[in-house]
Amino acid sequence: MKFGGTSVADLDRIRAVAERVRAEVEAGREVAVVVSAMAGVTNQLVGYCQALSPLHDAREYDAVVATGEQVTSGLLAIALQTLGVDARSWHGWQIPLRTDDAHGRARIATIDGDALISCMRAGQVPVIAGFQGIGPDGRVTTLGRGGSDTSAVAIAAAVNADRCDIYTDVDGIYTTDPRIVAKARKLDKITYEEMLELASVGAKVLQTRSVELAMKERVRVQVLSSFADGAGTADGETPGSLVVDEDEIVEQELVTGIAYSRDEAKVSMRRIPDKPGIAAAIFGPLSEANINVDMIVQSTGEDGMTNMTFTTSKSDLGRAIALMEAAHHEIQYGELLTDDAVVKVSVVGVGMRSHAGIANTMFRTLSDRAINIQVISTSEIKVSVLIAAEYTELAIRALHTAYGLDAA
Amino acid sequence: MKFGGTSVADLDRIRAVAERVRAEVEAGREVAVVVSAMAGVTNQLVGYCQALSPLHDAREYDAVVATGEQVTSGLLAIALQTLGVDARSWHGWQIPLRTDDAHGRARIATIDGDALISCMRAGQVPVIAGFQGIGPDGRVTTLGRGGSDTSAVAIAAAVNADRCDIYTDVDGIYTTDPRIVAKARKLDKITYEEMLELASVGAKVLQTRSVELAMKERVRVQVLSSFADGAGTADGETPGSLVVDEDEIVEQELVTGIAYSRDEAKVSMRRIPDKPGIAAAIFGPLSEANINVDMIVQSTGEDGMTNMTFTTSKSDLGRAIALMEAAHHEIQYGELLTDDAVVKVSVVGVGMRSHAGIANTMFRTLSDRAINIQVISTSEIKVSVLIAAEYTELAIRALHTAYGLDAA
Repeated sequence: MKFGGTSVADLDRIRAVAERVRAEVEAGREVAVVVSAMAGVTNQLVGYCQALSPLHDAREYDAVVATGEQVTSGLLAIALQTLGVDARSWHGWQIPLRTDDAHGRARIATIDGDALISCMRAGQVPVIAGFQGIGPDGRVTTLGRGGSDTSAVAIAAAVNADRCDIYTDVDGIYTTDPRIVAKARKLDKITYEEMLELASVGAKVLQTRSVELAMKERVRVQVLSSFADGAGTADGETPGSLVVDEDEIVEQELVTGIAYSRDEAKVSMRRIPDKPGIAAAIFGPLSEANINVDMIVQSTGEDGMTNMTFTTSKSDLGRAIALMEAAHHEIQYGELLTDDAVVKVSVVGVGMRSHAGIANTMFRTLSDRAINIQVISTSEIKVSVLIAAEYTELAIRALHTAYGLDAA
Repeated sequence: MKFGGTSVADLDRIRAVAERVRAEVEAGREVAVVVSAMAGVTNQLVGYCQALSPLHDAREYDAVVATGEQVTSGLLAIALQTLGVDARSWHGWQIPLRTDDAHGRARIATIDGDALISCMRAGQVPVIAGFQGIGPDGRVTTLGRGGSDTSAVAIAAAVNADRCDIYTDVDGIYTTDPRIVAKARKLDKITYEEMLELASVGAKVLQTRSVELAMKERVRVQVLSSFADGAGTADGETPGSLVVDEDEIVEQELVTGIAYSRDEAKVSMRRIPDKPGIAAAIFGPLSEANINVDMIVQSTGEDGMTNMTFTTSKSDLGRAIALMEAAHHEIQYGELLTDDAVVKVSVVGVGMRSHAGIANTMFRTLSDRAINIQVISTSEIKVSVLIAAEYTELAIRALHTAYGLDAA
């Protein structure tokens, strides 16, 4: 059971989490708990480090910031004991949860599950400080923001858990954003691959790294609300959304969900002399500047000229423009156009692999609403289009209906 | 160098502490630093634990509360690096500083100074989280409130430090409270024994345990202000007060200081039948109830009757009265009198050992001001009297002058 910062934001919520854990224990399950810092604490600690030095030592940053989860784990252990549930806190170094030495964004190397398993066998609930580990040199490391999800999945794998329940402020994964589409449906099950595509295009329920790890280790992950009822019934039914292997999903729908991302900006260069090395001249500087480029389209114009369009995040747009202007003598584009009033809408589903026509339904649906598609990109289980931001809600609602996702 | 909570209360003060450490490093000294939690943080964390359960698990309390010092050590390391001083934080378990398993009030068992010495030899300043250690079972322990002083002295011993500088909000140890006596003088040197007597009678500069440890390990301790100038000059002069072995003090004065404690209450039982077992009947129940008794006077009255007077802290007075009333049938006192409008004034000095007349000067000085002495107690280097609280300032000023302690 993993509880995020809003689920443990104050003492009352910590007490409520303890009640929830007790219910699982009383249902006869062996439980390990992973917690984040109380909401706001991590930001405060990060703020201290940044105020002292914008270029602070990542090892010290980790030593400071990891304390937030240590506080929560101790407090939740006390709250559980108060309810008569035997419990104890575990810091990353005590388990030990070993990581590499990439402080601030460490990757998990190994987890020794023995101590935690012994703890559970003895009837005690381990309450683990998430987000943290111990590096090769014996210093505290952190896994990067949102790393507690990754901690939880990794620990679930290390103790051979039947399931990893991620408690959050939503009650599951939906076919699309319920704030936009009232008829959005909660998905009972979704594959790891679909979850990865949904996460990376803007459905911020689970950290991408935690889903990748779950897929690699075959950990069944349930996303559910920390404010709703229990985590599951004795016969295996679960109230949230299960992220599982494709094999577990008997009746796969063609399209699982519609995701969108508003954090998009478009850069177009027109009338570029079409000669070898142009792509390198454009994307080399962007890569060196650590600017992530998402969609890329090259189209041939008249007279041997070519057009190039790419998208990046809104926050990187300014730097990207500066780099393209600096490279003008090399790229020799005729015109540089940018637009950040755009949105990326994606249709995701593993069923696409075996069914043609998914993309066509998307194009026709948007065309029927006179929505112009600016850029298209596809992957094995996803079709994404870039459209004007003003059409966001219209497009998502139309697609949700077109793919038969509306709730009855 | 040890810095308490007010010295690291916010980022500006942490920066000021870093400047001070840098000055020591630039003066060519090898320095290790011990820090407390930022002022207020420990109280907040303790408050969380108590709100969840008044009878919380001390192991979890320790895991939660120890994080305060971990935050400060990381932040100070960053502040030092920003000034170009190589530094790193150390938690208790990393050193390791091993303690017994008395969580919440652990005693230091062993400290491995090797890692810290290597750190300093390599030109790096270790910034150690005070107040904490690791217990026999690998869990975090704390040394009790104010334990950072004890950490600092113990670490000074473990790394064979020339001196342990305790930075606080006063600039040294005074002949008496400067708020009462304007002519109070700062002492350049004071013996461990005198410091212990001064600490235990109300001069709250150093934790008693840290002074005991310094005496045992022969660690020279300097008390100085974190707001005044540097810790010492190249020729060994120090701006604060040094707590040292008696041998180091060449010209010992007869009386070193005048201390007082307002936290006193007096209980008198009069007309007790004088028979064996009366003392046990009185002090047995007090001891069982964990009530500290300080001064005790038994005086013989008329007709084979005796009177017994003792003092305790004001907060224990109510319980002490209840216990004495409950024991009335056994003690059979004629009258029970209590008074909490009293103060204990003490004259301290190792010179007393070899000089008679110190106590007499005290009695005569008080008598000249018509101040009635209610109880007297003495130790090898101390004379204490209990007087009415209203005379506190008058008595202290008169004694300060009488013993020649007034500044010129």
